[in-house]
Amino acid sequence: MPQGPPRRRGLRMTVLPRRRVRRGESVPVWRQIEIDLTFEIRTGFHGPGDRLPSEAELAQAYGVHRHTVRVALARLAAEGLVVSRQGKGVFVAERPIEYAVTRESKWSEFGERLAAGSDGKLMRSSVRTANAELAGLLGLAPGTELLVVETVRRAGGDVSAYCYHVFERARFGGIDEAFERLRSYTPALAEFGHPEFFRVKTWIDCRLPRADEARALAIASDTPVMVMSYVDAGRDGAAVLFGAAVFPNGRLRIRIDSP
Amino acid sequence: MPQGPPRRRGLRMTVLPRRRVRRGESVPVWRQIEIDLTFEIRTGFHGPGDRLPSEAELAQAYGVHRHTVRVALARLAAEGLVVSRQGKGVFVAERPIEYAVTRESKWSEFGERLAAGSDGKLMRSSVRTANAELAGLLGLAPGTELLVVETVRRAGGDVSAYCYHVFERARFGGIDEAFERLRSYTPALAEFGHPEFFRVKTWIDCRLPRADEARALAIASDTPVMVMSYVDAGRDGAAVLFGAAVFPNGRLRIRIDSP
Repeated sequence: MPQGPPRRRGLRMTVLPRRRVRRGESVPVWRQIEIDLTFEIRTGFHGPGDRLPSEAELAQAYGVHRHTVRVALARLAAEGLVVSRQGKGVFVAERPIEYAVTRESKWSEFGERLAAGSDGKLMRSSVRTANAELAGLLGLAPGTELLVVETVRRAGGDVSAYCYHVFERARFGGIDEAFERLRSYTPALAEFGHPEFFRVKTWIDCRLPRADEARALAIASDTPVMVMSYVDAGRDGAAVLFGAAVFPNGRLRIRIDSP
Repeated sequence: MPQGPPRRRGLRMTVLPRRRVRRGESVPVWRQIEIDLTFEIRTGFHGPGDRLPSEAELAQAYGVHRHTVRVALARLAAEGLVVSRQGKGVFVAERPIEYAVTRESKWSEFGERLAAGSDGKLMRSSVRTANAELAGLLGLAPGTELLVVETVRRAGGDVSAYCYHVFERARFGGIDEAFERLRSYTPALAEFGHPEFFRVKTWIDCRLPRADEARALAIASDTPVMVMSYVDAGRDGAAVLFGAAVFPNGRLRIRIDSP
């Protein structure tokens, strides 16, 4: 029961069926248009390099004032989803960089693929007590003292992540200082007797950013972030760390290649 | 340079270091507390079954009125992250169901693992023209007519997804009707000559929900959703469909087991 091709309103309208916005909802109309165009772009209905319909065409399709469309397009531009070319229109930007999840996934390697070396920055570290869940992930007894290290990794261009790494304090006390000196966990873990480590499990999640995260990542506080949580193990298979990397979704997406 | 264990304010405070909220920001204080507690829970610092600090303790830790904490806790309860037990306190809920991404990943199989059969519902279908990106993913020439089918899949309990499936119209015209009759793509694709299909690639993304999605999934319009996009191929390795499943993040998380 396809509804047939949408009515043509000029060439560009063929890929943008008429869409409704709802007035009097808690979500402002410009925001609804931003969300709708984000859907169109992210799902691929407008691909990289495609020209978006003009402001006037979009205003007509949504039944709103051009100014409302302009606000939505400005947000998309700020998020890096579209690029405006003077006199030519608004174009869908290149796809975000992809982070492939594999056994060899390491933030530093990803960084090295993007740019010459990473330059991690230590934000803060603190001590917590392992609850049952974290103890289980790290193979420790509940109540064990943990070292939680917060860092920001810039990996070339505008891709950064706000990272939390959780270690057993007794074995890895001082790894925060090693990170600060070496600016990456790969050499820091080598100093702690783990020249190799492997990604064992990964979970992917999303949420809104904490104020610290939004500031460090230079994103709007109402833009969702992705959270990739993981356990890395050493050569012997025993867990070395639990990590959580928070990154702005618009600039990085996660890819999984099925074997 | 660990800052040492947080000052103890009663037993529970040991796992919740004092955290700042910022006044006069665009994000209301209750929302900042909701985001902060979501971080604590999602990252595992408060694990399933753990009792959260009391309203009074949280109000003290954040330096806010108890009412503000109550609003944040009510949101967490609505999202299914915490459960309130009368007279006993507020506890972290069980972890969301995990969707493991593998070559055999199929929404229907996932459904069957959760409950006896799925009961997909056809929402709408439309015809679009393939742009370069979608054409590339599906192995078609740009300009080919596509059938876009929107469905909602309920997979037992309160886990649902709003799904978009994109097919070549010439080969799969009518698959929307087959889905409506059979309530799942697995038997529908069998009728179209594809008794088997495999997940080839997966991308994971997040964004805010469109109004239609928020309504169908019964979630707040300001709660981020996860989007899992994928290409499924038939036995011969040729792409059969491009899909995008949108689901409420709180009730499902994605797991990847490294080989």
